[in-house]
Amino acid sequence: MTQRDVQRERTRTAIVRTAATMFDERGYLGTSIRDIAGALDLTVGAIFFHFKAKETLGREIVTGYYVRWNALVERARTRPGGRVEAMMWLSGRVAQAYVDDVEVRAAVRLVRDRSLSIETVPTPYLGWISITAEFLTQARAAGEVAPDLDVDLVAYQLVCTWFGNQHITGDLGALPTLPDRLKDMWRVFLPVFGGPTPIDIDRAFAA
Amino acid sequence: MTQRDVQRERTRTAIVRTAATMFDERGYLGTSIRDIAGALDLTVGAIFFHFKAKETLGREIVTGYYVRWNALVERARTRPGGRVEAMMWLSGRVAQAYVDDVEVRAAVRLVRDRSLSIETVPTPYLGWISITAEFLTQARAAGEVAPDLDVDLVAYQLVCTWFGNQHITGDLGALPTLPDRLKDMWRVFLPVFGGPTPIDIDRAFAA
Repeated sequence: MTQRDVQRERTRTAIVRTAATMFDERGYLGTSIRDIAGALDLTVGAIFFHFKAKETLGREIVTGYYVRWNALVERARTRPGGRVEAMMWLSGRVAQAYVDDVEVRAAVRLVRDRSLSIETVPTPYLGWISITAEFLTQARAAGEVAPDLDVDLVAYQLVCTWFGNQHITGDLGALPTLPDRLKDMWRVFLPVFGGPTPIDIDRAFAA
Repeated sequence: MTQRDVQRERTRTAIVRTAATMFDERGYLGTSIRDIAGALDLTVGAIFFHFKAKETLGREIVTGYYVRWNALVERARTRPGGRVEAMMWLSGRVAQAYVDDVEVRAAVRLVRDRSLSIETVPTPYLGWISITAEFLTQARAAGEVAPDLDVDLVAYQLVCTWFGNQHITGDLGALPTLPDRLKDMWRVFLPVFGGPTPIDIDRAFAA
């Protein structure tokens, strides 16, 4: 890479980060290319050199999020040990990424607000629900949860609870406590699962 | 009321309804006074005759929602019978209002998106959580739920689940099924409550 390439790459990264910060705070409609340029002391033209539209910028953030989410799901899938612990571990990692990374929060908000065109992002929540159902089905087959657990019903409600924690905890200005609130979520759901063996939530999160 | 007053009142109502429809679909930032006027075949000036700013219109919708919510909470408080059933009844009524009335959906979205200035609306979710905790505390005192139930933890998680159902069910285009999804929510939480007597969810919703 030439010096110039390095500089371009650096500018590109700064644009994505600044856009994410603004999308997270004010939403997609509340942010203009002009705002992003202004915050970076760049011209509007300089932004358009890297991204041909605000939609392209939003798409990059959401796509990056799905890549990360899929990688974490894959790691959870291939983890040894119980499937319930694997789900807990996944929720902890996703929550920590949400707390730590403004690009993750921006992506979640873009998806939640349906800011991008339908072609850009898959229908939200369906993948999340089906992965949760997949883990619960395997947990049921392995005897980790009650044999008559209604997996689809519980997966749907678990995702609603998870999503609600993410939104409400953030909105109440308590974002750093999100992993703790998700531990509370698991405290609620463990008796619902009705598994035969106690599960250590803190250990699953720390793993 | 003169003929003219009646006409004014009718126009005012139509403005609120149209604004609510647009806020619900496109959000506050995605809706302009010009859009609302256009949809009603009115001039922008005619809208401003009734509402001095978009914020005033948003405030009217959110205030109307809180009046309705508080009235339902009061009815739930004064209902005879179990406190868990009273909570279920409340959730069913709120869900049905959300399904049936675009002004309720618009208000929820304005609150969720933090569209209005902080002075206009109370901090969202706190009232909802504290009312849920109030019902659970009374249920615990009456022996309807386990004596060691962690009321604050469960109230927080219940509100997260309720909020998540509202958002996700709507977003998946399945809004009319919201009352059924909330019945599922109660199916999840009843074993968590650990009460000594089975509770008929359908009956509580139908009451």
